[in-house]
Amino acid sequence: MSRERHRKRRSAQQARVHALPPGLSGGQYRPLSDDDVQRIHEAALIVLERTGVRIVESECRHILEQAGARVDRAHDRVYIPRQMVEAALKTANRDVVLYSRDGRFDLHLRGTRVHLGTGGAAIKILDLETGYVREPTLRDVYDIGRLVDTLDNIHFYLRAVVARDVGKEDIDVNTFYACLSSTGKHVMGGCYFPEKVAEIKKMAVIIAGSEEAFLARPFLSFNLCWMVSPLRFAPETTETLTAAVRAGIPVSLVSAPQSGATSPASLVGTLVQVIAEELSGLTYVQLLRPGHPTLLGGMPLVSDLRTGNMVGGCAELALMNAASAQMTQFYGLPVYSSSALTDSKLPDVQAGFEKGLTTAAVALAGAQYNHHSAGMLESMLTVAYEQYVIDDDINAQAMRLVKGLEVNDATLSLDVIHEVCMGEGHYLAHPQTLALMESEYIYPHTADRATRQDWEAAGALDMRERARRRARAILAEHYPTLIPEETDAALRAEFNILLPREAMQPAGRMVSRP
Amino acid sequence: MSRERHRKRRSAQQARVHALPPGLSGGQYRPLSDDDVQRIHEAALIVLERTGVRIVESECRHILEQAGARVDRAHDRVYIPRQMVEAALKTANRDVVLYSRDGRFDLHLRGTRVHLGTGGAAIKILDLETGYVREPTLRDVYDIGRLVDTLDNIHFYLRAVVARDVGKEDIDVNTFYACLSSTGKHVMGGCYFPEKVAEIKKMAVIIAGSEEAFLARPFLSFNLCWMVSPLRFAPETTETLTAAVRAGIPVSLVSAPQSGATSPASLVGTLVQVIAEELSGLTYVQLLRPGHPTLLGGMPLVSDLRTGNMVGGCAELALMNAASAQMTQFYGLPVYSSSALTDSKLPDVQAGFEKGLTTAAVALAGAQYNHHSAGMLESMLTVAYEQYVIDDDINAQAMRLVKGLEVNDATLSLDVIHEVCMGEGHYLAHPQTLALMESEYIYPHTADRATRQDWEAAGALDMRERARRRARAILAEHYPTLIPEETDAALRAEFNILLPREAMQPAGRMVSRP
Repeated sequence: MSRERHRKRRSAQQARVHALPPGLSGGQYRPLSDDDVQRIHEAALIVLERTGVRIVESECRHILEQAGARVDRAHDRVYIPRQMVEAALKTANRDVVLYSRDGRFDLHLRGTRVHLGTGGAAIKILDLETGYVREPTLRDVYDIGRLVDTLDNIHFYLRAVVARDVGKEDIDVNTFYACLSSTGKHVMGGCYFPEKVAEIKKMAVIIAGSEEAFLARPFLSFNLCWMVSPLRFAPETTETLTAAVRAGIPVSLVSAPQSGATSPASLVGTLVQVIAEELSGLTYVQLLRPGHPTLLGGMPLVSDLRTGNMVGGCAELALMNAASAQMTQFYGLPVYSSSALTDSKLPDVQAGFEKGLTTAAVALAGAQYNHHSAGMLESMLTVAYEQYVIDDDINAQAMRLVKGLEVNDATLSLDVIHEVCMGEGHYLAHPQTLALMESEYIYPHTADRATRQDWEAAGALDMRERARRRARAILAEHYPTLIPEETDAALRAEFNILLPREAMQPAGRMVSRP
Repeated sequence: MSRERHRKRRSAQQARVHALPPGLSGGQYRPLSDDDVQRIHEAALIVLERTGVRIVESECRHILEQAGARVDRAHDRVYIPRQMVEAALKTANRDVVLYSRDGRFDLHLRGTRVHLGTGGAAIKILDLETGYVREPTLRDVYDIGRLVDTLDNIHFYLRAVVARDVGKEDIDVNTFYACLSSTGKHVMGGCYFPEKVAEIKKMAVIIAGSEEAFLARPFLSFNLCWMVSPLRFAPETTETLTAAVRAGIPVSLVSAPQSGATSPASLVGTLVQVIAEELSGLTYVQLLRPGHPTLLGGMPLVSDLRTGNMVGGCAELALMNAASAQMTQFYGLPVYSSSALTDSKLPDVQAGFEKGLTTAAVALAGAQYNHHSAGMLESMLTVAYEQYVIDDDINAQAMRLVKGLEVNDATLSLDVIHEVCMGEGHYLAHPQTLALMESEYIYPHTADRATRQDWEAAGALDMRERARRRARAILAEHYPTLIPEETDAALRAEFNILLPREAMQPAGRMVSRP
């Protein structure tokens, strides 16, 4: 068969393999040696014993004291002996699953299995129509969720923006509602007040049909910034954490120190502190409920020491988050890490390289739950619709790196090479080529691979503009029905749901009915 | 001291650490296991013994036959027994240095020491003023060299473009002249005709002052595509290679098969073929001149099997080039690898992420001589001035990843953490922070880290536009005098130098003289 005919045949097949399955195993990149890992672990234990954590008088402090921690009441310091930490590591859950509702996107956070998802919550968004920055609304939480639902290389939906049009009283429940009605993937979000935990659980139970059904496959979880670095428990969030654990809702223990500001300027020192912080949180959670599904949410950030500004898109951050993944793998526990942050204010070449470089490193390190991997701009302050589409293509490439190379008799291809070299001298027509077309390669949906001529003929658009168009097309079409009408009515009867039902269907559909 | 005063002090210091030294050691990322490496090596030896290489009747074939290769004259096939390859690996040069003229940028290509530089030769360029694509000229070779000379994270200058305004007869000498007069970094280039090798050497000898001086520190080298994949020696380029080796000029043995077209669709199969190709070339070079400084130029490329187009900016390419680096480290020889290619036609978010992701992977794999790491767009067809500036910032981040984390008593920071937690609770004022400001962190020159407010006040420019302005500023100012006037006159007397002397100084300087 001629090359031209082959090309046409393949083109006609329209290979559309844009995604690899979530949970491929990384770990081919190891920023730390085994000895380094051990030394950081030992140092973190010393910090907890010698420096301790600051916890004010509270139920939490009482529980830790009862379990053997020494409390210095004058300075609110709690010293945690290594035996307590080691006991917590023994009972910790090493098989955490964050469930999706449809089962297609369950996240098994074991070993070095890599998952990439959104992060937040940003307080600004680039408007998809105007391109200008504005405050996000509840509608944005819903619309971003609809994008996430269709983009296969975004494996979970951590609520991306703060709905600035909703008051504190209603925001937790409404944010979870907007997420759960826009995507079937696992949803993670925050919880501003301890008393809201029960409300959110009630919502989940209504959707699941029963408490048993929800607790068997919890499809939502909390990321709780219970730690104020360096080494201080936040009193109210610790209460929320306590309520969440008792309610059986999976939690990520978020601690996000910024090197040179709230943790040492030494990157290794920051790792020591963040591991100490995480181990203090884990110890507490295990005392509350042994085996509770918990993510180690140590998420080291970086300061630009010239200005003190937080920096997201840099190698130092990638190094620490990759090392953080390696540390939690040492414990056999899931990490809640960060990559794909950028300090650029818009989806330009800077946003691209900062995302590509940090995601490659953190994914290759085998981060099990890597958030911020879609949508983010301006350190952590802004998201953009088109950026989710772009990041889906980036994540596909990162997952292809993670999938790696498999060396075996078939892939070594000795006979293929021999046949081709002794024959027509070209591999395009060889059966291996066609057979591997959809398994060995991944194809982007928005990144351009055309010739310059074809690209110019198509309007000479940059990737941002192509992504913007794709985002508009998805948002015009994709209105999933994830919550049946009856359940939705029950939710609206129970809670002050602010997203109108009419907003959850294509514009004009109501009008077009007779 | 207050935070504000600290910030001001630091801002005043204007930390400008934009670069790390070349030659930091990578290898923290290993896409292949030790067993994988061994299997690929064994498979490559089998290919050379069983499938062999195609070489037409020539001096080269005669030399290989004399040394023990079996020749099938009817099919022009040469079968190379493993003993010959193993003998070549014994005498190969494991301490290749590619010299710079000023000694500041000597490239010691040992172990996993990483160097990143330009690639080419592109046949199109984005005009710095108009932004439109055009044919490159000799002036572009010179101007890109001037950029490279000032950008510290571009470690060598492989001539980037084909000067389309120069005929074949003059192009080799003129291209080297334009490179050598624009940067003091190591220069690598091609050579169209075997008889031009002596001319280029003569030019180098004139610049060095004597043949001994040049051969003691060869500051230029050849990249020669002597291999037509799969497994065929190109007759004329093999002659050029022979001449270069005999002249004592370092060479890179370039083989760039494209998976699914000129090598197997299996990525591992492509690695087997490319290693076999490289070992055949190395064997030949060692027979000519044992210990000749040689780079293994296996540079696996990728086809988009939907169209047959060559694809540069993808994970599959990064995987193969990272694995290729690992293979050559196994031999203890330097690799000539590729990253930072992109299929985008302009410096947009796609160009960014494809560069960031592939450079992170290949640099972390410890590639000693990684070309294409600056300037490239549109697979390998186009370069852009501003892209060199952008890629310098990308390379800085990649080198920071490579530098990695050093775990020791000081970096673990136990006392720093203790002091801060027991004291003011903030690290900004701690002496460690100031001490590590310029050693632990790298600062971009063109990537944006401002607040949105400051960024908007500065014109809300994307990185491409900022890079364009920086490129213009450099080109307006930087006219290095690397070839003394007397030597230059000698060169112009000897060769048909087409770059006018007047073009090699700031515009208007001649005019402004009285």
